[in-house]
Amino acid sequence: MKRLKVSNNVIRRLPRYLRKLDDLAANGVTRISSFELGQQLGLTPSQIRQDFSCFGEFGQQGYGYNVADLRAHIATILGSDRGFNAVLIGVGNLGRALIENFSFADCGFTLSAAFDINPDLIGRNFGEIPILNMEDLEKYLAENSVDVAVLTVPKHAAVSVAENLEQMGIEAIWNFTNVELAEPNTNTIIENMHFSDSLLSLSYFIAERRDEQASKSGKADKE
Amino acid sequence: MKRLKVSNNVIRRLPRYLRKLDDLAANGVTRISSFELGQQLGLTPSQIRQDFSCFGEFGQQGYGYNVADLRAHIATILGSDRGFNAVLIGVGNLGRALIENFSFADCGFTLSAAFDINPDLIGRNFGEIPILNMEDLEKYLAENSVDVAVLTVPKHAAVSVAENLEQMGIEAIWNFTNVELAEPNTNTIIENMHFSDSLLSLSYFIAERRDEQASKSGKADKE
Repeated sequence: MKRLKVSNNVIRRLPRYLRKLDDLAANGVTRISSFELGQQLGLTPSQIRQDFSCFGEFGQQGYGYNVADLRAHIATILGSDRGFNAVLIGVGNLGRALIENFSFADCGFTLSAAFDINPDLIGRNFGEIPILNMEDLEKYLAENSVDVAVLTVPKHAAVSVAENLEQMGIEAIWNFTNVELAEPNTNTIIENMHFSDSLLSLSYFIAERRDEQASKSGKADKE
Repeated sequence: MKRLKVSNNVIRRLPRYLRKLDDLAANGVTRISSFELGQQLGLTPSQIRQDFSCFGEFGQQGYGYNVADLRAHIATILGSDRGFNAVLIGVGNLGRALIENFSFADCGFTLSAAFDINPDLIGRNFGEIPILNMEDLEKYLAENSVDVAVLTVPKHAAVSVAENLEQMGIEAIWNFTNVELAEPNTNTIIENMHFSDSLLSLSYFIAERRDEQASKSGKADKE
């Protein structure tokens, strides 16, 4: 697929479009205008048209978008039809939550195995996912095609495990450790799940609302 | 605090600045230019100056930013110095991972209690956090000042629990359920942790790299 350079903001909006289109399809909607789609997502119609124009022409002026076609196109752009494979490293509470409750398949991924150093876990299965010995990871990666390592090890182990993964040739790490792994010089693609960034954003929105309310009631007092 | 309207993109970058400034402070850096800060974050110096200008004047032309002052200022803007309180709803694997491994305190939050319907959990403590009966939530909220509910219930319970929380007057929900709760008409502030959006973005970056490599090797073949 030939690709144009697309801004990070557009890339980050694509999964949201995908979710919304899935919702629409599930509700029997087959066609939607950029105006309606924008209203439902809190974006302007022109922003939506601009985002989609990064990937060629979707939709027809005046006819709106075919929901199924648009969904398929965005899924292709996101690569969720490529059958990427993942392994999970570190089967603590969070690792287990991802294994048991997160649908990798909905994103087009297959989670094939999880690895840990805990002898009580090694050899067990969670759902259909076998927990293997961390010592066997290198062999596993040599014998299986694995694209992504989901990193759910404790903080103190994050950097050393990530370095090992890079040496073993892992192409991408989905990082849940809250430790910053992104290095300007690394070849590995790192996607960080920063829980704290999300909570701090929430904090901002609460603080902002409180300040607005305080400012309003201050004004009301003066009136 | 008087606030200017700030774009969502700027708000989302503030936690990243905070993390970087913490790193710098931990490494003994006391002053940094927008140029250096930009290099370390992959942003242009002018973008950084523009972001900070949304909140008044930081730094001095030619002198850079005082790391400690800038950190304190951003923390104030984010409200992480306001002592917000949180409860957690749903003590499954993910809830437990958050209770035991996520530092609410680092974001300025206090997690005071968790709630579940499972009799095997009710009455226990994880770390210092008591697991209380979901039936006692309303009473708890009436007697304690709680700003945020961390929602880690199973998918099928997400909407009904969120509705209950809104009726009980919870101001904000940190939503881990992967169910879209944001309603245009709700008063509740909802911050969604969409794991799938993150994994799909990662998918995009892998697909993009593979396409670039394929296109390069295609060109090489032709030469």
